[in-house]
Amino acid sequence: MDAVAPDLVTFGETMLRLSPPRGSRLETTETLRFSTAGAESNVAIAASRLGAESTWLSKLPDSALGRRVVTDLRRHGVTPEVVWTDQHRQGTYYLEHDSAPRGTAVIYDRNDAAVATATPGELPTEPIENASYYYTSGITPALSDQLRETTQALLKTAQSAGTTTVFDLNYRTKLWDPEEARRVLEPLFSHIDVLVVAARDARTVLGLDGDASAIATALADEHGFETVLVTRGDEGVVALSDGRVSEQGAFETETFDPIGTGDAFVGGYLAARIRGDELASALEQGAATAALKRTLDGDLAVVTQEEVDAVREQSSSGISR
Amino acid sequence: MDAVAPDLVTFGETMLRLSPPRGSRLETTETLRFSTAGAESNVAIAASRLGAESTWLSKLPDSALGRRVVTDLRRHGVTPEVVWTDQHRQGTYYLEHDSAPRGTAVIYDRNDAAVATATPGELPTEPIENASYYYTSGITPALSDQLRETTQALLKTAQSAGTTTVFDLNYRTKLWDPEEARRVLEPLFSHIDVLVVAARDARTVLGLDGDASAIATALADEHGFETVLVTRGDEGVVALSDGRVSEQGAFETETFDPIGTGDAFVGGYLAARIRGDELASALEQGAATAALKRTLDGDLAVVTQEEVDAVREQSSSGISR
Amino acid sequence: MDAVAPDLVTFGETMLRLSPPRGSRLETTETLRFSTAGAESNVAIAASRLGAESTWLSKLPDSALGRRVVTDLRRHGVTPEVVWTDQHRQGTYYLEHDSAPRGTAVIYDRNDAAVATATPGELPTEPIENASYYYTSGITPALSDQLRETTQALLKTAQSAGTTTVFDLNYRTKLWDPEEARRVLEPLFSHIDVLVVAARDARTVLGLDGDASAIATALADEHGFETVLVTRGDEGVVALSDGRVSEQGAFETETFDPIGTGDAFVGGYLAARIRGDELASALEQGAATAALKRTLDGDLAVVTQEEVDAVREQSSSGISR
Amino acid sequence: MDAVAPDLVTFGETMLRLSPPRGSRLETTETLRFSTAGAESNVAIAASRLGAESTWLSKLPDSALGRRVVTDLRRHGVTPEVVWTDQHRQGTYYLEHDSAPRGTAVIYDRNDAAVATATPGELPTEPIENASYYYTSGITPALSDQLRETTQALLKTAQSAGTTTVFDLNYRTKLWDPEEARRVLEPLFSHIDVLVVAARDARTVLGLDGDASAIATALADEHGFETVLVTRGDEGVVALSDGRVSEQGAFETETFDPIGTGDAFVGGYLAARIRGDELASALEQGAATAALKRTLDGDLAVVTQEEVDAVREQSSSGISR
Amino acid sequence: MDAVAPDLVTFGETMLRLSPPRGSRLETTETLRFSTAGAESNVAIAASRLGAESTWLSKLPDSALGRRVVTDLRRHGVTPEVVWTDQHRQGTYYLEHDSAPRGTAVIYDRNDAAVATATPGELPTEPIENASYYYTSGITPALSDQLRETTQALLKTAQSAGTTTVFDLNYRTKLWDPEEARRVLEPLFSHIDVLVVAARDARTVLGLDGDASAIATALADEHGFETVLVTRGDEGVVALSDGRVSEQGAFETETFDPIGTGDAFVGGYLAARIRGDELASALEQGAATAALKRTLDGDLAVVTQEEVDAVREQSSSGISR
Amino acid sequence: MDAVAPDLVTFGETMLRLSPPRGSRLETTETLRFSTAGAESNVAIAASRLGAESTWLSKLPDSALGRRVVTDLRRHGVTPEVVWTDQHRQGTYYLEHDSAPRGTAVIYDRNDAAVATATPGELPTEPIENASYYYTSGITPALSDQLRETTQALLKTAQSAGTTTVFDLNYRTKLWDPEEARRVLEPLFSHIDVLVVAARDARTVLGLDGDASAIATALADEHGFETVLVTRGDEGVVALSDGRVSEQGAFETETFDPIGTGDAFVGGYLAARIRGDELASALEQGAATAALKRTLDGDLAVVTQEEVDAVREQSSSGISR
Repeated sequence: MDAVAPDLVTFGETMLRLSPPRGSRLETTETLRFSTAGAESNVAIAASRLGAESTWLSKLPDSALGRRVVTDLRRHGVTPEVVWTDQHRQGTYYLEHDSAPRGTAVIYDRNDAAVATATPGELPTEPIENASYYYTSGITPALSDQLRETTQALLKTAQSAGTTTVFDLNYRTKLWDPEEARRVLEPLFSHIDVLVVAARDARTVLGLDGDASAIATALADEHGFETVLVTRGDEGVVALSDGRVSEQGAFETETFDPIGTGDAFVGGYLAARIRGDELASALEQGAATAALKRTLDGDLAVVTQEEVDAVREQSSSGISR
Repeated sequence: MDAVAPDLVTFGETMLRLSPPRGSRLETTETLRFSTAGAESNVAIAASRLGAESTWLSKLPDSALGRRVVTDLRRHGVTPEVVWTDQHRQGTYYLEHDSAPRGTAVIYDRNDAAVATATPGELPTEPIENASYYYTSGITPALSDQLRETTQALLKTAQSAGTTTVFDLNYRTKLWDPEEARRVLEPLFSHIDVLVVAARDARTVLGLDGDASAIATALADEHGFETVLVTRGDEGVVALSDGRVSEQGAFETETFDPIGTGDAFVGGYLAARIRGDELASALEQGAATAALKRTLDGDLAVVTQEEVDAVREQSSSGISR
Repeated sequence: MDAVAPDLVTFGETMLRLSPPRGSRLETTETLRFSTAGAESNVAIAASRLGAESTWLSKLPDSALGRRVVTDLRRHGVTPEVVWTDQHRQGTYYLEHDSAPRGTAVIYDRNDAAVATATPGELPTEPIENASYYYTSGITPALSDQLRETTQALLKTAQSAGTTTVFDLNYRTKLWDPEEARRVLEPLFSHIDVLVVAARDARTVLGLDGDASAIATALADEHGFETVLVTRGDEGVVALSDGRVSEQGAFETETFDPIGTGDAFVGGYLAARIRGDELASALEQGAATAALKRTLDGDLAVVTQEEVDAVREQSSSGISR
Repeated sequence: MDAVAPDLVTFGETMLRLSPPRGSRLETTETLRFSTAGAESNVAIAASRLGAESTWLSKLPDSALGRRVVTDLRRHGVTPEVVWTDQHRQGTYYLEHDSAPRGTAVIYDRNDAAVATATPGELPTEPIENASYYYTSGITPALSDQLRETTQALLKTAQSAGTTTVFDLNYRTKLWDPEEARRVLEPLFSHIDVLVVAARDARTVLGLDGDASAIATALADEHGFETVLVTRGDEGVVALSDGRVSEQGAFETETFDPIGTGDAFVGGYLAARIRGDELASALEQGAATAALKRTLDGDLAVVTQEEVDAVREQSSSGISR
Repeated sequence: MDAVAPDLVTFGETMLRLSPPRGSRLETTETLRFSTAGAESNVAIAASRLGAESTWLSKLPDSALGRRVVTDLRRHGVTPEVVWTDQHRQGTYYLEHDSAPRGTAVIYDRNDAAVATATPGELPTEPIENASYYYTSGITPALSDQLRETTQALLKTAQSAGTTTVFDLNYRTKLWDPEEARRVLEPLFSHIDVLVVAARDARTVLGLDGDASAIATALADEHGFETVLVTRGDEGVVALSDGRVSEQGAFETETFDPIGTGDAFVGGYLAARIRGDELASALEQGAATAALKRTLDGDLAVVTQEEVDAVREQSSSGISR
Repeated sequence: MDAVAPDLVTFGETMLRLSPPRGSRLETTETLRFSTAGAESNVAIAASRLGAESTWLSKLPDSALGRRVVTDLRRHGVTPEVVWTDQHRQGTYYLEHDSAPRGTAVIYDRNDAAVATATPGELPTEPIENASYYYTSGITPALSDQLRETTQALLKTAQSAGTTTVFDLNYRTKLWDPEEARRVLEPLFSHIDVLVVAARDARTVLGLDGDASAIATALADEHGFETVLVTRGDEGVVALSDGRVSEQGAFETETFDPIGTGDAFVGGYLAARIRGDELASALEQGAATAALKRTLDGDLAVVTQEEVDAVREQSSSGISR
């Protein structure tokens, strides 16, 4: 399949997700729900389901666990390009859903994951060079020193090939502290065209002040991003593109499982951009995809274009805020 | 059991209902919940559980699937009077529950259902003639040309025998369009004593204007119904009977599964009328039954008189609106 | 393990709890969730999980059902001290969760439970004498005449040994009527140091008037309790201790299962007192433990000190009311 | 429904059955399967499913638990004639399936069951008088002194009315000892037309020697039974009727759940007799029904005539032994 | 992906499979397992998992049900080439597993399936022309007159393009009778290179006599097949290729679910041929794949090359027969 | 609890066990069963359930995963003595049950487990010194260099204190190769009183020839073990003690889950020795415990003394071989 030019390539870790039934605890449950999850595959899956030819790049242990990851990507139409290894682990995470006042409890068990050893040399870079968009997140360089190097190398590859690079800062307190994150991430900014960042992370990690609009402007000014998307949870997103600021509200949802909301937003946004939508339309599609994701169990936006369009139509009737 | 005179006879299709767990999708789920559902059996079951001797008339494929329908009716005390056939299908429907902003997703798979071929001649009409009430809904004639004929014939049979005829308009956009529905349904009105209709359907299908009260009046005036019940979702019902308009609010509920609410209302209403309740009391029982249904998984109002009475008592303390 | 001095000893009945899935009914469900429940073991478990060495005293049938109770206590660190018998039953209760306007439906099946025959002579009293706190509830003497005698005897034993006695009035309408409850419970008051009582029960059973504060004062005045805790559901608790009244609000929760909330409060409170917390701190820990319990399936507060502390910290930021 | 003459009436206790998943234990399981079970309802259900109009007589607590029993009988076409009471319990039993060398573990929790208080006066005897067959088992008089009296009274009622009486000795070691069983059961024999007894029980309880044939002959000789069916587990049954001995082998099965096999045999046998089959044919249908039951989870023979016939046809090709 | 030349293309119907838990029945079960199944997709999936680039051609309703089919094919690496339609149904089948003496119960609900209307013109034939192997089965032309025409047209297309054509006779009594099957299937034989046929079907449908070897010879002689594979259930397969007869025994298995065994055999066989294995090796891989399938729930051979090789190695140590 | 002298102390790793439903695969399953497993805790649990005061020593991550391990040990009456750490992982293993010809598939995910860093200094040695028996297995030193040192140190501690040391060689091919295992394990033999070893491992790892009896003799001769137990799977065990060889057959079982059989044997054996049984009786109890374990899901012998005795009684009637 060498000749294929994917619309979107993503690179990162996909974990196995293990979660007890609602109201039950890891300490006592007899059963777990078993699925797969990872920012970069979540984005690829959302985009794929909304029409984008998507490829996911990674490194996996050659076992039933690694194959499980591939299986789940494939069923949503994503093409996995995987380096298989007999060494290292398949990362997992355990999740107990929040229920106020009890917060979401996440236990990462991703040390020594195979992907953490992925070198630029062993990964196929052709898909990145041929793609329209390349996406990765700030989780990837947080996983290992090797991945810091690899993240930078792949961003450069994309940049050189004229592939639009998209980066979601995705700061994870369980992986590193704000200072280290900033020290590692800022040098990547010069290779990034589209930055996605939560307002909260911009404050914590990048030390920025002000509202989302101020943050977007500061980032674009300092680093020259083509587009900055500053997300604000249920207050929606502020976009700065070509010097213009625009806003997109979040759709109200009955939330079943909030994990993966941000990735669904990015996947929906990118799928729209890929098919040629204007920024405003892409933001709205991102918001609609994110809203639908929240109604579904698991990290994945198992949605259809029809459903996304239905949410957007409600929005034009004023449901969105 | 020829000599038995049921309180209520209903006629229509009962489907098998297949639904994935909450938050899961038909595209990926490994398991489905399996139950039975159909406006006319839902009404018979609700009424039976509240004390009415109820009989359900239909035609089913002679298979484990057809038997499943009978089994589920029986366990709630309804007497099934079934024409068995080796031809045709058992209708099913797939349901994904809504979770805002995602709507309820229903896939009907009821083409060529055995019941769609039921002729007036093959169905036992004696129960209808002996019954106090006969109920069917606008779904039935929407299923086939044969059923349009059969629906009319059975209504006439009931009318001739002095059995009170109850008809819920139950317009389903997935089965036909408003024009066709009106063309088929209006000629049935002269055989109907009690019409139940959603205000929205009255507007869409029958072209009526105004509020529920105006709709009820217009319908009674034009077609001479003894009683018209105009339902308005969570705003309750407006009844016109003997020229007097009355209202019954809906009880507030934590909704687990809204499917079947309208049928539970009718079943509760009829059970009350059958035992001699005044209109207001019957409307309140209908509303209470409907409220309880919403707290339960599946189409069926698996409730007791005691529970219905408990809801009504809360209501007299002002909880109802 | 004779030499061990537990922090807390509780005495009472633990039942097997059988409940259908949400939205399903005992009349039709194919499956039940199976767990254990009982005020006195609930308290012991909550306290044990929060650091108190806890012992639970009871009498059980020597069967897999009795062993199940022991198994569930042990896994939360409670030491069961059980009199085994070949006679009598293991009590159970069936639970259908409420969903407005449908109320919680409880069917007790606890007649002839082994514990109802427990005599003061056959139970090991040493743990009570060595403990810092002894807890039982008003459910226990409601179960049998024998248990009225045993409850009193054990309270006296504790009192003589200088063990602080804690009693939750826990009035259950399905077990007795207010008059009988009062007649049996009031004579116990002279042996009680800390009384926990719902404001509603104080009115119904003890005939007291006024708000929670008035109730607490009246009770302390009349019976000389060291501490009175008057609970008011989601309005929190009023405490009277050493003549001073203080209040603790309830934390807001997304409630998954409210059963066992009161017991979690007492368990959290006692664990704090046992480790030396001031009253206010203990009340806050009780309220936090109760709030977490409501997010969990089953009667038990399967929580950690860390989680309780996290809720309390939110509270200092003003979330509590 | 006074005028109806059922083919078969049975009287006895139906319990709720609670069993953990295969390989799991009551001590630790989180879930239980929930169903209903009882010799007399098992027989009525098997017979009903094979064409016999069947009525089940009993006394139940007026609760969701009692209603569950009724619900499960109804769905298999049996008419429940129930005396409802606000007193007494619904009997249950806990079952862990055997897996060699571990035996089946049954915990009866049926003390103080409502049915144990059923008097001849409160039960409707008309169905028994109108029926062709009346069936009860030796479990019923084992449950209480009252039921000894009631069992005898109902057998007399049947006998006087010319209803053929069928009695399965069904000795249960957990309910009484052989001496007491013999003392209570033998006086009933003069009212019994058809006795079903396991060879093992005939030896243990009735003190008989020899093989099944000898046992049948001895019983017929001494008590004048019209028919004696001596069952021998997987060696089939020996029948003595009108002085002639005949045999019916058991069909080989992959056993999923053996509980209820004997009841399925009797139900299949009676349904065949009721429709006029000769003894040999009825025995074969009994054996086929029993074999099918063993392939199904739960006590009930949820089978069809078609399936029973298919097994019998295999048998004529020599599969039966 | 026009330029891709798949190793294997298959064409046929894939159904949704609905089955109750072991020991439970469609008449009463609350839950169903939900999966996908179809001879041609089963073969494509088995082959894909064992290394063959596989494409599946079909026509599906444009709904969540049709998408479910695609999803399940994709996750095993098969490329679906689907004609989507807004008309017609998604076929399903209900399955109760056998448990001796109860046989497997299958209820097909596949009338009016979208695929039954697939015309040669609307299906993409390029993949067939580019492929090494084209596979379809005798089920396909049994589904509709249109599919008889389409089956023939596609076989001709493959033949013309030099693609090796493989056809599994797969006679289904529930779809047609032997005479009709023969009348339709024999004219296809001239377009077929490799015929797979159960010995039983060869006798019933094609009227052949003798043992598997005689059947193979007769078929090759009369129709000039390059290869004939005559399967004999647990006695293995007899192959005739280039005039030489060879045999491959079946591996002994603990059977969990036998459905799909034959398809797994063909898929394993084809994957081996595609990578260049000799006939004997391909037969052995087919047998090993079939054996593994029997240990798995569902129609699909969710196996790995490693597992297949492990079974084959056991076989060289003499376990095979 | 310093003063307590446990009967048995074990030291080793306990993992979380994750397994898909029967017939399902890790690649596709939506759910996993979740339990705990580890040779040393399995032995402690079996012994505890059969009356031995048992303590389990280990090091765990301070998380819900580590607490889960403690919870499961406690519910079977074992006292966990745990060193908690904020570093390192909780080991897990994934299990797909075998179904011939498919073998058991185990994926260990235990690298960097907290226990692998446990030093002799941080573990409490008092329980070992006070115990009658100390048990560990050859898995423990296979996990890390640190554990080789710690295993030796703890064995020496036990030996010095006069605690009888029991060691199960438990060779795991996934952890090391035979040469390395031998090099590490043989130096431990001088500190071991009772060696348990599978005949197969004795051949593979220790290079011994001959039958079980010869192996036992060779081992006792060379290393001076007080007792050697050579296990032979379903052929039972050969014991050499005080120079006398004896045999104990395995009980025949319907195997539900064979994992943990060997540990159940050792646990049953030790519990019998601890209460003073002779060797032959202890071997028989070990075999009976092992047989029961095989009928249960999970690694644990969730059995009672009563059940073990029932199996042994059958054995005296000749069922054992």
